[in-house]
Amino acid sequence: MRDLHQVASEAREASYPLAFSSECKRNLALKNIANILAENAAEIFSANQADLQRSEENELPGPLLHRLKFDQAKLEQVILGLNSLQTIPDPLGKTTLSTEITPGLDLYRVSCPIGVVGVIFESRPDALVQIASLCIKSGNAVLLKGGSEAHDTNVILCTCIQKALQISGLPENGVQLLTSREEVSAMLKEDEYIDLIIPRGSNAFVRYIMDNSRIPVLGHSDGLCHVYIDREADPAMAIRLSVDSKTQNVSVCNAMETLLIHQEIAPAVLPELYKALLSKGVTVLGDSAVRQLIPCGTATDEDWSTEYLDYILSVKTVSSLQEAVSHINHFGSHHTDAIITQNIDTASDFLNQVDSAGVYWNVSTRFADGFVYGFGAEVGIATGKIHARGPMGLEGLTTYKYKLLGSGQTMDDIKQMKYSYTHIALDKADPTRIRRE
Amino acid sequence: MRDLHQVASEAREASYPLAFSSECKRNLALKNIANILAENAAEIFSANQADLQRSEENELPGPLLHRLKFDQAKLEQVILGLNSLQTIPDPLGKTTLSTEITPGLDLYRVSCPIGVVGVIFESRPDALVQIASLCIKSGNAVLLKGGSEAHDTNVILCTCIQKALQISGLPENGVQLLTSREEVSAMLKEDEYIDLIIPRGSNAFVRYIMDNSRIPVLGHSDGLCHVYIDREADPAMAIRLSVDSKTQNVSVCNAMETLLIHQEIAPAVLPELYKALLSKGVTVLGDSAVRQLIPCGTATDEDWSTEYLDYILSVKTVSSLQEAVSHINHFGSHHTDAIITQNIDTASDFLNQVDSAGVYWNVSTRFADGFVYGFGAEVGIATGKIHARGPMGLEGLTTYKYKLLGSGQTMDDIKQMKYSYTHIALDKADPTRIRRE
Repeated sequence: MRDLHQVASEAREASYPLAFSSECKRNLALKNIANILAENAAEIFSANQADLQRSEENELPGPLLHRLKFDQAKLEQVILGLNSLQTIPDPLGKTTLSTEITPGLDLYRVSCPIGVVGVIFESRPDALVQIASLCIKSGNAVLLKGGSEAHDTNVILCTCIQKALQISGLPENGVQLLTSREEVSAMLKEDEYIDLIIPRGSNAFVRYIMDNSRIPVLGHSDGLCHVYIDREADPAMAIRLSVDSKTQNVSVCNAMETLLIHQEIAPAVLPELYKALLSKGVTVLGDSAVRQLIPCGTATDEDWSTEYLDYILSVKTVSSLQEAVSHINHFGSHHTDAIITQNIDTASDFLNQVDSAGVYWNVSTRFADGFVYGFGAEVGIATGKIHARGPMGLEGLTTYKYKLLGSGQTMDDIKQMKYSYTHIALDKADPTRIRRE
Repeated sequence: MRDLHQVASEAREASYPLAFSSECKRNLALKNIANILAENAAEIFSANQADLQRSEENELPGPLLHRLKFDQAKLEQVILGLNSLQTIPDPLGKTTLSTEITPGLDLYRVSCPIGVVGVIFESRPDALVQIASLCIKSGNAVLLKGGSEAHDTNVILCTCIQKALQISGLPENGVQLLTSREEVSAMLKEDEYIDLIIPRGSNAFVRYIMDNSRIPVLGHSDGLCHVYIDREADPAMAIRLSVDSKTQNVSVCNAMETLLIHQEIAPAVLPELYKALLSKGVTVLGDSAVRQLIPCGTATDEDWSTEYLDYILSVKTVSSLQEAVSHINHFGSHHTDAIITQNIDTASDFLNQVDSAGVYWNVSTRFADGFVYGFGAEVGIATGKIHARGPMGLEGLTTYKYKLLGSGQTMDDIKQMKYSYTHIALDKADPTRIRRE
């Protein structure tokens, strides 16, 4: 195993020129990555074949094998992503606050990279390129750890990215690959050099990371999403959105796991909804009121806390909006929850009271995604409250610094009342933001 | 000891009505706190006398006794702060992004409270009112732990605040006081109910918190601030700002600890600066080049990493801006660092390359403070990169949620290309933001 203290320290060193680099140079690196990946397509596919063969021998399940595949179609998709990312405005150097503190002393808050980020992701090798390119665009150095099934593909993809950084005049240590669990454990100790860990994985895995590192962690533990059908819902829309939220893709974090329905509308909606869900192969489990309306199985208290990620849905009747909100805040995972209603006041109360990263009105929960939101891509979906919440794109990979531009002001002068605070909003861009190089 | 799981759960329950409450009600609570504190002035002063007497018997050092004092002047200052906070615009319900995802489907990012915050602070009892009022204004519930010396004063202040919450129609459990270290340790386990811990205290204390909790922690460990005198500095300004940064208040986190000076300007500045520092009682320690110019003591490598919080200053010569930047990024604490120069290009390079929460040009480091920045007050100063950086005021106590307002859109329709993403910036405020009650 490599010395992770050394690896992290090199990433920190690389983070400074990356943070200071021009938008032009960072976009050039993205362009060069696309070119180098295309030039090395044959080698990448052959490395991926080795991964696939080894994984088949290890009897990796079919859906995971499918995600592991990196072929011409995937390459084209990755290159499309790299090209589109170049057109997105620079997330760095943006002035988000400007205030005159006292005449001749101006404060600017300006966006800048976080620094060094550690990302642990699943078996898709295309995720490596996506995450690395988001980090480069936002001026961050990154340590990447992918699924071990994708080892060979990840190694060659990372080599291509490092070559692109180098020929673009950026430090190749800005993107580095970790290749074992021991390296991940060692990385968690490097709080001096690493500013943020983003684990994409199971609930237990995210908690393991949090318990074993002083480094801040952004991740989502669960995706236990709800749809609440209000008594003033349009029945046809309620059925359409419930079926889409549950079945459009059952294995993702933004799929619905529990349906709440107002008791007054349940008789008019549940029988037809049940038929629609059955036809999609969904097993329905309900509380006693639900079971009086449809011939479904029994939902126990445990069901309200279960993320099935499968063709199973728990259904509960509620007697009020307040009961629905309380249930969601208590049992939910603060990911994405939707209300279906024609009443804007009821909708507003739901949206303002439900304590989740995404609160939806008359739309499927499946829309919770960084690409859908227009962020280009996402490096993860955060369900905590700190820093970034929901789909985390380029903006989530930035922080800010306060620049105070003076002309010799001392605190002693202030205390002696030679001048006083004016606190006038300036609405001006930071005059020192230009990155020279 | 109370059951902290129960205490935290009550804080969580209180956080929902607080988050949903109108600006008017939260400002009313601040007004009522001011009134109730004034009505109970005699009882507060008498509790404070008990704290002072006990602390004198325990031989608490003079400066700490001074901070512990809560008298008429402190009360007036606290009431002034409460009144001024009422005039600050509501930090909640602000739309910070609005995008049309596809016709009839609009995305809004809207500011909202973090939820439940735990703050551990030092011996000043007035800090309790300041922190509690910032939390109420921003719709957060808060668990407070002050210094044990201030126990009696804190208890009565917290009782006054709870009474004010109650008569304002807000949950009194929104502000609760912890009174022992055991309760703090127990609080750290409540990651289900507490969203953020803000420890104000020593480096070792902040690290202890980070090592013993899964809850995100925002705090600053050190304030090792630098002033760099560039070769194009104005000598008189360089001396004035260095003296102010070092001596205006030596015991605070934004005081200078290390002075860096360009070797070309050192002969013209150091002798006079040394005299000025000596006259303020500062002990100067220098590297060998410094010692050739002034008769000071020897700075060892350890000095570059030492936060003196005292009348001591380490001085080092550098041969370039780059050397100054590297020294600061390596030895600094990422709090606040200043350059003194007449050259805007040099200044820009310094401000863009130094990796600190505050980067200053021609101004004393002593300006790093939430009140100075115009935030009304601060709940702490963060030196990490995640969530808030620098002085953390009301905005640092908020997060956001994504509201997606649709008209029946399903992901299935998108996949079948019935409509596609438009991603048009709307520049519109969230139509569901109004808090009814």
